[in-house]
Amino acid sequence: MTIKIGIVGYGNLGKGVETNIKNNPDMELVAVFSRRQLAGTISGVPAVTIDKIEEYKGKIDVMILCGGSATDLDIQGPQISKHFVTVDSFDTHPRIPEYFAKMDAVAQEAGTCSIISVGWDPGLFSLARLLGNCVLPNGKDYTFWGKGVSQGHSDAIRRIPGVKNGKQYTCPKQEVMDSVRAGENPEVKGNEAHTRVCYVVPEEGADLAAIETAIKTMPNYFVGYETYVNFITEEEFNREHTGIPHGGFVFRTGESSEGVKHVYEFALKLDSNPEFTSSVLLAFARGINRMAQTGAKGCFTVFDIPFAWLSPKSGEELRAHLL
Amino acid sequence: MTIKIGIVGYGNLGKGVETNIKNNPDMELVAVFSRRQLAGTISGVPAVTIDKIEEYKGKIDVMILCGGSATDLDIQGPQISKHFVTVDSFDTHPRIPEYFAKMDAVAQEAGTCSIISVGWDPGLFSLARLLGNCVLPNGKDYTFWGKGVSQGHSDAIRRIPGVKNGKQYTCPKQEVMDSVRAGENPEVKGNEAHTRVCYVVPEEGADLAAIETAIKTMPNYFVGYETYVNFITEEEFNREHTGIPHGGFVFRTGESSEGVKHVYEFALKLDSNPEFTSSVLLAFARGINRMAQTGAKGCFTVFDIPFAWLSPKSGEELRAHLL
Repeated sequence: MTIKIGIVGYGNLGKGVETNIKNNPDMELVAVFSRRQLAGTISGVPAVTIDKIEEYKGKIDVMILCGGSATDLDIQGPQISKHFVTVDSFDTHPRIPEYFAKMDAVAQEAGTCSIISVGWDPGLFSLARLLGNCVLPNGKDYTFWGKGVSQGHSDAIRRIPGVKNGKQYTCPKQEVMDSVRAGENPEVKGNEAHTRVCYVVPEEGADLAAIETAIKTMPNYFVGYETYVNFITEEEFNREHTGIPHGGFVFRTGESSEGVKHVYEFALKLDSNPEFTSSVLLAFARGINRMAQTGAKGCFTVFDIPFAWLSPKSGEELRAHLL
Repeated sequence: MTIKIGIVGYGNLGKGVETNIKNNPDMELVAVFSRRQLAGTISGVPAVTIDKIEEYKGKIDVMILCGGSATDLDIQGPQISKHFVTVDSFDTHPRIPEYFAKMDAVAQEAGTCSIISVGWDPGLFSLARLLGNCVLPNGKDYTFWGKGVSQGHSDAIRRIPGVKNGKQYTCPKQEVMDSVRAGENPEVKGNEAHTRVCYVVPEEGADLAAIETAIKTMPNYFVGYETYVNFITEEEFNREHTGIPHGGFVFRTGESSEGVKHVYEFALKLDSNPEFTSSVLLAFARGINRMAQTGAKGCFTVFDIPFAWLSPKSGEELRAHLL
């Protein structure tokens, strides 16, 4: 029996889930829900307005919430979790405990299961950090992000007068990563471990020096960072910078006994941040569906799901081929 | 309440567990069991002969079986699992299903829990492979080992006439790893992806050319591999080659949709293979202890344990700091 999936929210992430369903033959997409009345869906499944979502009770096993943390999930998460098993990618790290508590209360009361903060960070990177901490309890954590597009920084650049288009990549500093890999345990803050590389298409006749200064002196976004500004043509921008790549590195370095060092590293290099995140959401949709089948209720995170539950394969197959 | 640990077998691995206990304040070492009558233990806990192990029923929560797969675990695993919750590092990959079945039958009948094949490969590498397969279902797996000491190959070198001492390192080929990292999906066999680098201390007056030929033409061990033989002095050997470093790389490369590629990588660089393996055994001792507390019985693997159970921290702490 296939796992019946609903998608809530039809932006990059929702479309990514729709695209990735075909890589998971044990899953079936039933409908896409949106606040707007959509013209249709790429896959041809019904596009339904979200006020009709309760009509799908019993017809959908897992709802994948593809809204943003900042606005949608805070409201939609608890509403939908009241009626469905849900997965979401809530990614505002400092607010996770508060969101967890809210989702847990709803799911406990309704007898459903939810898993929050699924994706690659939070998500796979969190798992890498936790496992690293458990196997090297006497050690140090490092997370590097990039090379990847920061949507917030790109938006900030585009608001500067004279900027026609712009994109910002966050890049880990190679020399800092090399030092971590060598087990040197450097003390570095985030702004010392990353550079910000900007590609800007200026308006005709714009003051390039002024744009560069406006970027480099922008508080919260660029001040304190080694920032590079490259002016390029619109053609180059459209050829080289329309993707949404991302990725990063998690390290745990530690000693098991005096002077005996170990370096643990997890890395991702992603052509498309939303497509990969979608793929992770689907794996954990399978996991939370299994969790719900055990009769559990409440809110969970990636830390609570045994990896065997993420796979469509049997325990026997997994032990024979992947252990 | 601390988790009470027993160690069975007092070689490199057993001593590694003893060393690593101090990094896990929620654990307490109760005794070391051995077939031999040991003179004592490094930590001062009692050294007990294995025939008295049943006297420790109720006094030990988890027995960590530190014998080798080839000889000890096949016998000791089922015997000890009859009376105790156990963890072991059974690492003969093709025989895992058979060993699992045997351990599962015993544990089901006795009402205990066992977790087998814990360490870094099988173990952390297996987890990396499984997660990679789940989040990139349309993809390809690669595992590289090294730079690390192969005990079997080192032994084989030392049996060659004229060899006083020797050590063999398995090394991944950088160009193959680079190709995988670049998403080129090369088709390579293990012998094409690794080199074998040997350090040999010859007896005085030994025929070096004959030793080199004996190594490079040794079937099963070296034939088919790019093999390098370095003759060194005993002093250099003792200075540079007494450690047991190891490590390796797991990759999953795949596409989420046509042409949209992702590279997933997990890597370990270990100063001491047995010390790190011991540390992993302890984390999973915590995990299987939690599993036993749920009332579960039978045999499990790393695929069955949620990462939250590997940590001494509460779910709340983990969500606040590591998610």
